Amino acid sequence: MNEMNIVSEYDIAIVGCGPAGLSAAINAVIRKKKIGVFGTEFCSPKLHHAPHVDNYLGFQHITGEDLRLKFLNHAKDMGITINKNKVTGVFPDKKGFTLQSRDKFYLAKSVILATGVSTLKPIEQEIEYLGRGVSYCATCDGPLYKGKKVIVLAYNREGLEEANFLAELASEVILVSLVKEKDSQGIRLSDNISRVNGKPQAIIGEMWASGVALENEKIYADGIFIIRESVLPDQLVPGLEVSQKGILVERSGATNIPGIFAAGDCIGAPYQLSKATGEGQVAALSAVKYLDEFNYSNKEEAEKVSASV
Amino acid sequence: MNEMNIVSEYDIAIVGCGPAGLSAAINAVIRKKKIGVFGTEFCSPKLHHAPHVDNYLGFQHITGEDLRLKFLNHAKDMGITINKNKVTGVFPDKKGFTLQSRDKFYLAKSVILATGVSTLKPIEQEIEYLGRGVSYCATCDGPLYKGKKVIVLAYNREGLEEANFLAELASEVILVSLVKEKDSQGIRLSDNISRVNGKPQAIIGEMWASGVALENEKIYADGIFIIRESVLPDQLVPGLEVSQKGILVERSGATNIPGIFAAGDCIGAPYQLSKATGEGQVAALSAVKYLDEFNYSNKEEAEKVSASV
Repeated sequence: MNEMNIVSEYDIAIVGCGPAGLSAAINAVIRKKKIGVFGTEFCSPKLHHAPHVDNYLGFQHITGEDLRLKFLNHAKDMGITINKNKVTGVFPDKKGFTLQSRDKFYLAKSVILATGVSTLKPIEQEIEYLGRGVSYCATCDGPLYKGKKVIVLAYNREGLEEANFLAELASEVILVSLVKEKDSQGIRLSDNISRVNGKPQAIIGEMWASGVALENEKIYADGIFIIRESVLPDQLVPGLEVSQKGILVERSGATNIPGIFAAGDCIGAPYQLSKATGEGQVAALSAVKYLDEFNYSNKEEAEKVSASV
Repeated sequence: MNEMNIVSEYDIAIVGCGPAGLSAAINAVIRKKKIGVFGTEFCSPKLHHAPHVDNYLGFQHITGEDLRLKFLNHAKDMGITINKNKVTGVFPDKKGFTLQSRDKFYLAKSVILATGVSTLKPIEQEIEYLGRGVSYCATCDGPLYKGKKVIVLAYNREGLEEANFLAELASEVILVSLVKEKDSQGIRLSDNISRVNGKPQAIIGEMWASGVALENEKIYADGIFIIRESVLPDQLVPGLEVSQKGILVERSGATNIPGIFAAGDCIGAPYQLSKATGEGQVAALSAVKYLDEFNYSNKEEAEKVSASV
């Protein structure tokens, strides 16, 4: 990562723009922090689809969509914009954290994870082979497979785009597409992409992944790329402690990694609006506190250095 | 208590009608529980006095009073009424709990404490000037004093952190710190904070607060922030486990006494709206879960009894 394309530097990067992420965002902005909010088109598809919300104090008889728009307007009104680039990895570095989104990198002194509940179930052996032939990021790991053969398991439109990107590097790409036809419109696949139909059941291999088992056949390659909407938090952030209920946090929203906080559905049930906005607020204020101490310790270090010279 | 004047029986008694209490109330009603809400005239005097609330997601540019009325209307709209009788004790009994209010008694299968932060000994004229130059919340009211001069009366570590935050906005901050040295370690105060030693005796002013009287001198500013810790409600509920930060709870809002839950400022900082409503929601859903199990075990007992006859 010597030639990183660093786009921006933030005090706090917020991953997710649902109720928890937006509540964290407005609170961090009020506390004068420079923030970057990363999210998807709808921010909260769950809210978008809710016919009726009755239990968010202050609004009665409101539709989920109206509330979603009110939330977004509140954020917009404070000058907050949503960066639609999907964060695929959060990595610690000397000054804080690097967030990766395809070929772009963002630096942040602290991070708030508000990625929502993920209903995704990894396929068999996927996690075991992650980093050993299985990758979620074509931009990151594609160059490893130059002139080789790869399989792409595409669960969304982005998966098809990544297959095209990999086709420029790899000698051969086998595409297993689970993308709905309406979501794949307008994408023309490269000539060296061959399609196989089927539903992925398991990753196969020995020390290293060597292929994918579908219902009725097995397909083989040097590497396997899995591209889907959500990434599990502990895959997004290597070393993050999670349980079956969600990311493990203290009451402050602090995770096991200093400087990384979490809020909302991704830290566990109940999956509710007020809980999420409350936790977003707490995570933001905890991050602010962390930053104040962070700046202090840096200053102190600087003073120590200058005193010892 | 042989001749108790039992007024009502509830599934859930909620003590306090601030944001946490009301959020608990609407969530419990949606879950079809019979509730009793006990509170004071204003439910949330803090909210009533807040000139401006910016960090409750969904409402921007709203006064505390308008938001308080929206909260109350939401509850009223769901048929929730506030019982103004002050609860002076919560005692366990065979079926659940007895709440005492002077000579009246209420029975409840479960209890949610949402009693807020109360100032044990407010300094003279503090309450009178609240909202008129005196504030408890730097995040909320700090922006009003941009470029102006403020006094911070800091009774805890948070007070020092808030002084630093205010120093980013105000032209000058006068800090009267009553924080123990061990509690202030690691905090470096901004350059535009000046310290004055002394114990605050009274707020001074005319229509609007203009300063603070210490033992030997008076200090003046445009606004006064008072930051101190919550008072612990273990006298209300004998046997309740508390720390200096507030009632001890699990993430579910459960206290050390089965059937008693707590939410909002009374369980600790940060003293913020969204946090309070989120915790109120979580406490209500936890109480509902507790009641379902409670009813079930009663049924089971009943079945055991009828089987053995």
